Amino acid sequence: MSISTLDRDALGSLLSEQRAAYEDLRARGLTLDLTRGKPSPEQLDLSQRLLALPGEGDFRAADGTDTRNYGGLDGLVELREIFSELLGIPVPQLLAQGSSSLTLMHETLVWAMLHGFASSPRPWAAEETVRFVCPVPGYDRHFALLESLGIEMVPVAMNADGPDVEAIAALVADDPTIKGMWLVPTYANPTGGVTSPEVAARLMAMPAAAPDFRVFWDNAYAVHHLTTDETKSADALSLASAGGHPDRVLVFASTSKITFAGAGVSFFGGSPANVAWFKGHLKFASIGPDKVNQLRHVRLFGDADGVRSLMRQHRELLAPKFAVVEDVLAARLAAFDVATWTQPQGGYFVNLDVVDGTAARVVELAKAVGVALTPAGSSFPYGADPRDRNIRIAPSFPSLDDLRAAMDALATCVLLAAAEKALA
Amino acid sequence: MSISTLDRDALGSLLSEQRAAYEDLRARGLTLDLTRGKPSPEQLDLSQRLLALPGEGDFRAADGTDTRNYGGLDGLVELREIFSELLGIPVPQLLAQGSSSLTLMHETLVWAMLHGFASSPRPWAAEETVRFVCPVPGYDRHFALLESLGIEMVPVAMNADGPDVEAIAALVADDPTIKGMWLVPTYANPTGGVTSPEVAARLMAMPAAAPDFRVFWDNAYAVHHLTTDETKSADALSLASAGGHPDRVLVFASTSKITFAGAGVSFFGGSPANVAWFKGHLKFASIGPDKVNQLRHVRLFGDADGVRSLMRQHRELLAPKFAVVEDVLAARLAAFDVATWTQPQGGYFVNLDVVDGTAARVVELAKAVGVALTPAGSSFPYGADPRDRNIRIAPSFPSLDDLRAAMDALATCVLLAAAEKALA
Repeated sequence: MSISTLDRDALGSLLSEQRAAYEDLRARGLTLDLTRGKPSPEQLDLSQRLLALPGEGDFRAADGTDTRNYGGLDGLVELREIFSELLGIPVPQLLAQGSSSLTLMHETLVWAMLHGFASSPRPWAAEETVRFVCPVPGYDRHFALLESLGIEMVPVAMNADGPDVEAIAALVADDPTIKGMWLVPTYANPTGGVTSPEVAARLMAMPAAAPDFRVFWDNAYAVHHLTTDETKSADALSLASAGGHPDRVLVFASTSKITFAGAGVSFFGGSPANVAWFKGHLKFASIGPDKVNQLRHVRLFGDADGVRSLMRQHRELLAPKFAVVEDVLAARLAAFDVATWTQPQGGYFVNLDVVDGTAARVVELAKAVGVALTPAGSSFPYGADPRDRNIRIAPSFPSLDDLRAAMDALATCVLLAAAEKALA
Repeated sequence: MSISTLDRDALGSLLSEQRAAYEDLRARGLTLDLTRGKPSPEQLDLSQRLLALPGEGDFRAADGTDTRNYGGLDGLVELREIFSELLGIPVPQLLAQGSSSLTLMHETLVWAMLHGFASSPRPWAAEETVRFVCPVPGYDRHFALLESLGIEMVPVAMNADGPDVEAIAALVADDPTIKGMWLVPTYANPTGGVTSPEVAARLMAMPAAAPDFRVFWDNAYAVHHLTTDETKSADALSLASAGGHPDRVLVFASTSKITFAGAGVSFFGGSPANVAWFKGHLKFASIGPDKVNQLRHVRLFGDADGVRSLMRQHRELLAPKFAVVEDVLAARLAAFDVATWTQPQGGYFVNLDVVDGTAARVVELAKAVGVALTPAGSSFPYGADPRDRNIRIAPSFPSLDDLRAAMDALATCVLLAAAEKALA
């Protein structure tokens, strides 16, 4: 019953059916939202104790530091120890900072623009052109940040085992304007792809024309497993050292999707030289991060196993939602061959590819019946999906019932747009 | 008995006396610190409740927002309302952000460098030369931040009623390379000077050759009164509008010296155009500030009077320390005419000017007997005090006994250095 095998009559029937279903949706007056990868209230409740931690009288770090006062640019050692274990980064090479890893990425990029790295011929802002490799589909805020700084973007494919490293190696080998690349190595946004150790090793070892080429390794979902098969992230720092480019990789992470999305802690990791570079600029911008919030997190977690245990509780809440997405898409769409989608083993998103040329139409149709989707093309640089087929589904926030209703409505819109196109 | 009226014999006696006193100090093995303007543990204890706030189950902002989740770039309205009243800035023109106003100043400067303001002919980084007017003595971190960005500094005098506005008006009138100036308007660091409404009005109305000239109005000590005469800061935003330059002033403030120095909240204020400019860049760097910490502060303060009441408790702890500084300096130094110092009505510092050419020697002498002082020259751009006479005293952190011992040691060092110089 693949849509491509239907004759005009059958297509007409399909169109009528889906139009009727769509009118039913309209009549229901839905207001559902599949846009952003936000934790649900139930997930936030898992860290509810943070709201009363560290508790009156508890403000001393393990080394005796009064966390309430100024100072301590590196962040609390005991928090860095916990994430050293989870991220596989030695404590001296891992800084604990404020509530947002996006802010750390922004700082890194503005300092590269204004000052460059030790190996930069000049500050990036003084270059005629600076370009970044961007695996697609990818994270819209990564792309927006580059665009705001006038950094040009070169898309390459994101595969199940990581970015298309052969294409990247060919690009960076001869082009010194390519100064860096984004990568969400584990459970990528939005495809769920996991960069394999082999792909990571090649990225860290490939020759690059730019002496200051950097991989922005945004390990946002390092411990965000949806199954009991808890994938281990590739060891980027060791691979970079082994590949002869110890300063190539900059690691970012946060607890935004571990504790509170707006009030967690963030991490910057890198080679000793990169950490010194980061702190050398950070010291002009900050006297130190919020150490009380770091202590609060230490008290909540206890140790790395405390984080792992918390993440398993998240999994119990999230896995059923991803199952609903899979169930509805399989039940409604599989037979028609009008879409493919990912079955992520972790992270926050399902990547849905609909019939070429219909993604914008699907989003428009969904909006008109009260189902908010991320604008079509959001997962591509400049918001431009060349095939107009990509839709990012974020199932974490809605309740199971709302999610099922939203997915069902989305499936109707996908089918309706596909039938419209087939008959156009 | 002014040192200038003493003959060589009398000077020799003074030198011997102070040398003996100095050797006594050395024998005592002091370890005292007058360097940084840090709140004391007793001051931090005043906000101890923050360590258990907002409390489990309390996470909703007044408008129903779940503060634990993403979003809300402007910060919580109820917190902005409190500081709107205290800072005299309309709520829509006041953003509440993360734990550090220094970070906001850094962000403002890097965005000016990379993008410029609407009225900038080009990004500041694309200018041949960018210069800032720096009232001196001033805040070392302000100067270090400019230096890190390659912005040149032009010192002008800081007087009791604010910066030397005639000198500034003359400088900026014809020189388009002067893009801005620092100002701590209330209880300035380190002089305690308070910029009068008249001086502020002139700053906001004077013609400036640079169309994008900005006053960085760092109102760090707006509510930090040491007496019952609670000076009101000049209304910078209204004066700027009245002066025909509504976009001239950018206001910064924080609760670092109201609640916890490392874990407070910060504020950015400006004209509607400046606030839109700031948010227009901030949105690429942040999904929103730590709203839970903002709610925590709302719960602690209640309202603006809650802040005022807390500041009176700070005053009760701080005023006796400033009295000790005054007592010791008056008792030990007044008769000799070897120093002048300020008697601030608020803020965190006493500015001590010793005999010209001896400040570095005094700091060295003090260090050798275990009394840490900010390096001589720290309060000047590039660390260069042209008269080598300025020492910043930060009395807030030590206990009263330690402070008295440190001040007594400092007085000995001041006299010893003065006698050495007079006999040299």
